[in-house]
Amino acid sequence: MTDEEIRALDATDALRHCRERFALPDGLIYLDGNSLGAMPRAAAVRQRELVETEWGVSLIRSWNEHDWIGAPQRIGAKIAPLIGARPNEVIVADSVSVNLFKLILAAAALRPDRPVLLSEAGNFHTDLHIASGAADLLPDLRLEVVGREEVEAAIGPETGLLLLTHVHYKSGSRFDMAALTARAKEAGALTIWDLSHSAGAVPLDLNRDGAELAVGCGYKYLNGGPGAPAFLYIAEHLQERLLSPLRGWMGHAAPFAFTDDYVPAPGISRFLAGTPPMLSLIGLESGIESFDGVGMDQVWAKSVALFDLFADLVEQRCAGHGLTCISPRDPGGRGSHISFRHPHAFEICQALIADEVIGDFRAPDVVRFGLTPLYLGYEDIWEGVERLRLILESGSWRDPRFAVRGKVT
Amino acid sequence: MTDEEIRALDATDALRHCRERFALPDGLIYLDGNSLGAMPRAAAVRQRELVETEWGVSLIRSWNEHDWIGAPQRIGAKIAPLIGARPNEVIVADSVSVNLFKLILAAAALRPDRPVLLSEAGNFHTDLHIASGAADLLPDLRLEVVGREEVEAAIGPETGLLLLTHVHYKSGSRFDMAALTARAKEAGALTIWDLSHSAGAVPLDLNRDGAELAVGCGYKYLNGGPGAPAFLYIAEHLQERLLSPLRGWMGHAAPFAFTDDYVPAPGISRFLAGTPPMLSLIGLESGIESFDGVGMDQVWAKSVALFDLFADLVEQRCAGHGLTCISPRDPGGRGSHISFRHPHAFEICQALIADEVIGDFRAPDVVRFGLTPLYLGYEDIWEGVERLRLILESGSWRDPRFAVRGKVT
Repeated sequence: MTDEEIRALDATDALRHCRERFALPDGLIYLDGNSLGAMPRAAAVRQRELVETEWGVSLIRSWNEHDWIGAPQRIGAKIAPLIGARPNEVIVADSVSVNLFKLILAAAALRPDRPVLLSEAGNFHTDLHIASGAADLLPDLRLEVVGREEVEAAIGPETGLLLLTHVHYKSGSRFDMAALTARAKEAGALTIWDLSHSAGAVPLDLNRDGAELAVGCGYKYLNGGPGAPAFLYIAEHLQERLLSPLRGWMGHAAPFAFTDDYVPAPGISRFLAGTPPMLSLIGLESGIESFDGVGMDQVWAKSVALFDLFADLVEQRCAGHGLTCISPRDPGGRGSHISFRHPHAFEICQALIADEVIGDFRAPDVVRFGLTPLYLGYEDIWEGVERLRLILESGSWRDPRFAVRGKVT
Repeated sequence: MTDEEIRALDATDALRHCRERFALPDGLIYLDGNSLGAMPRAAAVRQRELVETEWGVSLIRSWNEHDWIGAPQRIGAKIAPLIGARPNEVIVADSVSVNLFKLILAAAALRPDRPVLLSEAGNFHTDLHIASGAADLLPDLRLEVVGREEVEAAIGPETGLLLLTHVHYKSGSRFDMAALTARAKEAGALTIWDLSHSAGAVPLDLNRDGAELAVGCGYKYLNGGPGAPAFLYIAEHLQERLLSPLRGWMGHAAPFAFTDDYVPAPGISRFLAGTPPMLSLIGLESGIESFDGVGMDQVWAKSVALFDLFADLVEQRCAGHGLTCISPRDPGGRGSHISFRHPHAFEICQALIADEVIGDFRAPDVVRFGLTPLYLGYEDIWEGVERLRLILESGSWRDPRFAVRGKVT
């Protein structure tokens, strides 16, 4: 493939104009939008207004005047079309970890006679830790963790809950949501999907696929800003049957009646807990708005093309340097990042960052590149792989400074 | 008292210069800093830098380069001197509701043979709801709620946990932290203090008073911005004995090792859960910095003077209009707000807001005014009460538009 062909791909890219929606430093190849999405330019404007006018001038009145109070539901409704849910099936609240906890405990109460909470070994670890914490609390619940290939067969008569991450954070492998949800239902179990690496990245249709419970991350593909609140999905038919273990006042039917008795809010709002972190919440709203007018089918089609280009270029140019692609080549079985195993993945990742190619390292030996169609062009992939090739061929990653670990690595 | 005497009080006010640290609209008398603290001017500057440079330019690298990862502990350490704690005894995380849940469940595990979680009827309702949710989860725990005056006598051999709000959100009445903590300890119980209306408002010395567990709010007197994350305090000697029920990855000993096994972080950090909402978290840091160079003794001395002036002026000028002060006149028994009961508290509050005097209504019949010494002067009190008098004397609050309820009231 030539430089010219790459430029032609960018020239005919239907999402090319979306790049202008984001602020990205010149020269930087940002392949980490699956860890922290880039900043929408509109977010900067909106945050100034939020901080300086809504907080600074309207002050407490903003809860009514700027509908801060309705933000969890309003922003949830904006996420809904990206994941194939109804507007009243999604709210924004807390973190993925806290939302997982709520859903596990709420769902376990619907399956009192089924002691097993089943998950995948090597799942993103917060999911496993939250699950083990929940299991330690409930005498009738125990966590069972099996290898990815054994999950389906392990669903049995004792399984009450299945907790799976739709797209694996490390390999990018994607579960078949419809098939596994159906399999769990047949067996009498409820499934909780973690969509952290899926929402805003891959095509999702939770309603069509029969998904009942899900959580997902706001700061990755949804571009919500660092640590943006998470979302929580509950299929309509389950909402009135579930109760949150975290009965904060924002989930009360009448938060401003200040009564001693707990009365859960109707619908999904009962899964709100404390006062939401408004600066971060509104950041998420700006992030979601960066998808305005774009179909997830377009996003996904471009993701597939970016992935295939990345994989092909690495095969062609970086052969013999020990990189092994661990992400599925079949688009139907993967997410929107590409990962490689290498014994010196850490150092290579650091050398790339020094060359302004930002991917990330996932212990113990994976370097991971996020493919975010809204703000990445084909030329970014070309240039990113070119810099990777130079690092591998020159051995520049062996420089001792690239072995130094930060707090976050 | 004359207008001139009031101006003299302002002229000699040692905290007068602090008002310049805050952006407040001209003419507005803001008496709701106990619900949402005013915006420090420095917060606006810091948020721009955070959003536009740290997120927009440094992107994911900011977790290391701008020490986002250390923010929960760093900001906790800045709160510590305001509440009489050691720097390693405070972290910032989640909401008050979620932190209460963590501490109740963690502490209950230390008192397995004591089934009673004791709290106050009419406590801020999120505290009671979170407590009832925790009690419903744990078969050996039950919530008992007694009147304020009966709390001390109700502490008995079955009491495992005492959950009290230090300063009452409605009346402003303050419990004696040292006495009640000691009484609970004698009885073998642990006390959890909710400091939402105390931190940054009244003198606190958690270490001296023997406090073991506490939570508090970031968006009231600490000026952290709307929905700012909450803080959590655990006395050093208890930290290694407590485990959070919410085992999110940020509380793991090695969050970036991505191992399936849960190993709690040393010390209080294990009470972190998911990724913190960074925009809101840094907002809180700016809020706390608005106390720089100011002693809590100075803040409290001025609070007492503002309260006494408010109460005296209402007595002198608003007599005969049915306002009953429900806040204690003894400074040692109160917080930093003053509340009045009135059958038409709602309408009066709305009429005040229309006249640019912002207090708040607390159902069913209380109007509440927050006294925040960093940005309120004596003249604000004078002018606020004057506008209140005019509303009461003219009966302007009877205008039907003042009976219209918003979502938040």
